[in-house]
Amino acid sequence: MSAQIKVAVLGAAGRMGSEAVKAVTEAADMELVASLGRGDDLQQIIDAGATHVVDLSVPGSTEDNVRFAVEHGLHAVVGTTGWTEERRANLQLLLEQNPSVGVLIAPNFALGSVLASAFAATAAKYFESVEVIELHHPNKVDAPSGTAVRTAELIAQSRKEAGVGASPDATETQLEGARGAVVDGIHVHSVRLRGLVAHQEVLLGGPGEQLTLRHDSYDRASFMPGVLLGLRTAESMPGLTYGLDGYLELGQ
Amino acid sequence: MSAQIKVAVLGAAGRMGSEAVKAVTEAADMELVASLGRGDDLQQIIDAGATHVVDLSVPGSTEDNVRFAVEHGLHAVVGTTGWTEERRANLQLLLEQNPSVGVLIAPNFALGSVLASAFAATAAKYFESVEVIELHHPNKVDAPSGTAVRTAELIAQSRKEAGVGASPDATETQLEGARGAVVDGIHVHSVRLRGLVAHQEVLLGGPGEQLTLRHDSYDRASFMPGVLLGLRTAESMPGLTYGLDGYLELGQ
Amino acid sequence: MSAQIKVAVLGAAGRMGSEAVKAVTEAADMELVASLGRGDDLQQIIDAGATHVVDLSVPGSTEDNVRFAVEHGLHAVVGTTGWTEERRANLQLLLEQNPSVGVLIAPNFALGSVLASAFAATAAKYFESVEVIELHHPNKVDAPSGTAVRTAELIAQSRKEAGVGASPDATETQLEGARGAVVDGIHVHSVRLRGLVAHQEVLLGGPGEQLTLRHDSYDRASFMPGVLLGLRTAESMPGLTYGLDGYLELGQ
Amino acid sequence: MSAQIKVAVLGAAGRMGSEAVKAVTEAADMELVASLGRGDDLQQIIDAGATHVVDLSVPGSTEDNVRFAVEHGLHAVVGTTGWTEERRANLQLLLEQNPSVGVLIAPNFALGSVLASAFAATAAKYFESVEVIELHHPNKVDAPSGTAVRTAELIAQSRKEAGVGASPDATETQLEGARGAVVDGIHVHSVRLRGLVAHQEVLLGGPGEQLTLRHDSYDRASFMPGVLLGLRTAESMPGLTYGLDGYLELGQ
Repeated sequence: MSAQIKVAVLGAAGRMGSEAVKAVTEAADMELVASLGRGDDLQQIIDAGATHVVDLSVPGSTEDNVRFAVEHGLHAVVGTTGWTEERRANLQLLLEQNPSVGVLIAPNFALGSVLASAFAATAAKYFESVEVIELHHPNKVDAPSGTAVRTAELIAQSRKEAGVGASPDATETQLEGARGAVVDGIHVHSVRLRGLVAHQEVLLGGPGEQLTLRHDSYDRASFMPGVLLGLRTAESMPGLTYGLDGYLELGQ
Repeated sequence: MSAQIKVAVLGAAGRMGSEAVKAVTEAADMELVASLGRGDDLQQIIDAGATHVVDLSVPGSTEDNVRFAVEHGLHAVVGTTGWTEERRANLQLLLEQNPSVGVLIAPNFALGSVLASAFAATAAKYFESVEVIELHHPNKVDAPSGTAVRTAELIAQSRKEAGVGASPDATETQLEGARGAVVDGIHVHSVRLRGLVAHQEVLLGGPGEQLTLRHDSYDRASFMPGVLLGLRTAESMPGLTYGLDGYLELGQ
Repeated sequence: MSAQIKVAVLGAAGRMGSEAVKAVTEAADMELVASLGRGDDLQQIIDAGATHVVDLSVPGSTEDNVRFAVEHGLHAVVGTTGWTEERRANLQLLLEQNPSVGVLIAPNFALGSVLASAFAATAAKYFESVEVIELHHPNKVDAPSGTAVRTAELIAQSRKEAGVGASPDATETQLEGARGAVVDGIHVHSVRLRGLVAHQEVLLGGPGEQLTLRHDSYDRASFMPGVLLGLRTAESMPGLTYGLDGYLELGQ
Repeated sequence: MSAQIKVAVLGAAGRMGSEAVKAVTEAADMELVASLGRGDDLQQIIDAGATHVVDLSVPGSTEDNVRFAVEHGLHAVVGTTGWTEERRANLQLLLEQNPSVGVLIAPNFALGSVLASAFAATAAKYFESVEVIELHHPNKVDAPSGTAVRTAELIAQSRKEAGVGASPDATETQLEGARGAVVDGIHVHSVRLRGLVAHQEVLLGGPGEQLTLRHDSYDRASFMPGVLLGLRTAESMPGLTYGLDGYLELGQ
């Protein structure tokens, strides 16, 4: 963290983008050198002397933005969606030609959420039982949440690799839906409640004990520590990293 | 609580009965004067000078036990199941002939559980959203639990009487079961986890706030404070009371 | 709720006031007829045909505002602080001369918080143990929170009236502060955590069971259902009511 | 898990020991070949063909027991207290002479508790704020619990190594004890409540989000999965391992 990190924010007018502008401005070890919106000339990034870009634009622009950054030797932290496997494969090829550049593409920048999912996968192989409860505001149109589905998939994979069987369940008679949805063998329950934002609990049980991993997301500001951590780490992680957990030290 | 309460326990050899024997023995304001098991002569209760009986026997005996107590002017606290509406109606007739006698029949003696259900019904009319989560050990064969179903029914009735509509829910696409079972319009979720005993949460949500009422039942000892409260209150509540909440002061 | 409730909001430019303007505007059974700020002529309220006022002004204005409303036969819902016992006594005298007018002064309009405190007081006399944990953002300058202190006082009073002794505690060696602050004999713990808003848990324990009453306040919007409930109820509750709980049906 | 693990339990008559006898007997991949109590001849272990020992005896015996096991080439899982640094150093010397033998000494065998502590240390460096709440039955004589103190120490060490400063706290006026005890700069709160067993929460907060790691210990059975995991792992981990976390795969 010796030299200042000189950051250009792309998609700076959006909701996430404007949070990022604010967060970078307030970070003592960073300098905001450019804020670009739709249609702005990417050359401004270079002219401003940026060393890093944060891309929070739109799926239609993100690929061009990141390619431009990599080709100019800038590290990139990317929160825009739309990075299919094919796009990521193409980016990987480009990064092989620019081997000192680090790029982080993260579907989720909330540190607590990423840590909770990683811990859940680690713990799941040591407990007989595991279930997931996600709780959101009642305007959400899908159930379970995407994060809950991914968490259940990670848990299921961890248990499978460790040879752990299904959670015990003696249920014989059930009112339809009582035991929740089943994702890769893991039960997932979706609560919808006015006043909530986005919350998730992973419950793990063994003889005589329970471990609960809960994440509460109260507002969009929760993504900014993850974005800043990405900016601080990218230079030391050349190549493409997919998922913020790749930048975290999760062991001891 | 001036004079000592002289208690006979019926069904004293059962699991609940032996807990009651212990609890009455340890209560400073009570004296255990008789403990009867299956086949014992009820006359022992009278000979021992009991003023109150606790019936924790079996559905086949409880009606005879309670009638005997009432006919002899003894107050009764009853935890045995099997008290259909017809049986209760017959008991009520008998109590009219013995107007000073108080009988409590309670499907649930756990104070915390009874209070949580009562509070849930009271609060449910003041919040837009309400859902129930119950969590039990994985050997339970039915889902949701009987307590959760009754809680949901109480909540639904309270909201109906107050003219409160359904909890908002914008769910369009759902993995089957994700949103739980629906009891009288209230969503109920059942978690099964090794290590747990019996737990329930009622979640209530309004704009910008959440109220959570949680009850944890760790072991059978949790029923005893309710049994003792029943014994201390029965004399002052002549007639038949169904449900421990009838003996609680729930307002302010 | 037949006729429309015609509401004037005083202190409409403040943070609470602007929320109230929005909430009244959106309520189907209400009509916003006037919004007054500092220095505006109170006569506007009358000219606009208001039947009710909401006072969310400042301690220096609230007494004059409410007196004006009462003298003109308008019901009032008051969230401004500064209502000392003396001020309330004077208001009571004025209300005796205007016996059809209802005034609610409420230090706290969050329904969930008011209900949680009332439930805690009710439950506290049925459990051996009770403690309070309050959790707030780290910019709060006092600990414990005012709400936690009031909750502890209500709990202590309820236990005293019911003749319940102190919560059991065998602590012999203690790192200073570990067991929290003690308010009227009730242990209160204060957590300060970035990301939180305002949260409180009352934990009650008896043999083999636990009852937890938790309130989460996420934003200022949480006060508006209480304000609207006050407006809908004031006409049917002539005289002065202090505390929103006076307008709630808390028994069964 | 090819060959059967042949286990001798030392201290088999104690509370933990009798649980271990039961757990080993029920494990499909293990065979209980000997159960020894105080004064029994250790030679029985050899005669019975044990490959592993579980030592749950007393501080006065455990050192001799473990030395005997190591000298005879048996792997050992040790839950007895009293293993000072000096004792462990001596054992280490002995193990250098028996390089194929694995010994686990674990102050805590509850998997959930060990995982929760490890996760807390990992997560603590990514959040601005962290506090610990531990909750126990009211017969406990010390506060905070030993586990809470160790958890706070691990958290403090992790934050120090990562260069993370103190949790923010603007408290100016405080009722004595409200903000808890302070262990290495980490606030720790101790709740005592009838009905509880042993519970702990680590709360981590950052802008707009919260991560909560909770462990509930309901009874002694919670230690057995850790003991069995120790027995299954010891052979593949030659030398001395202190702490069950050394046998867990904590990264991804």
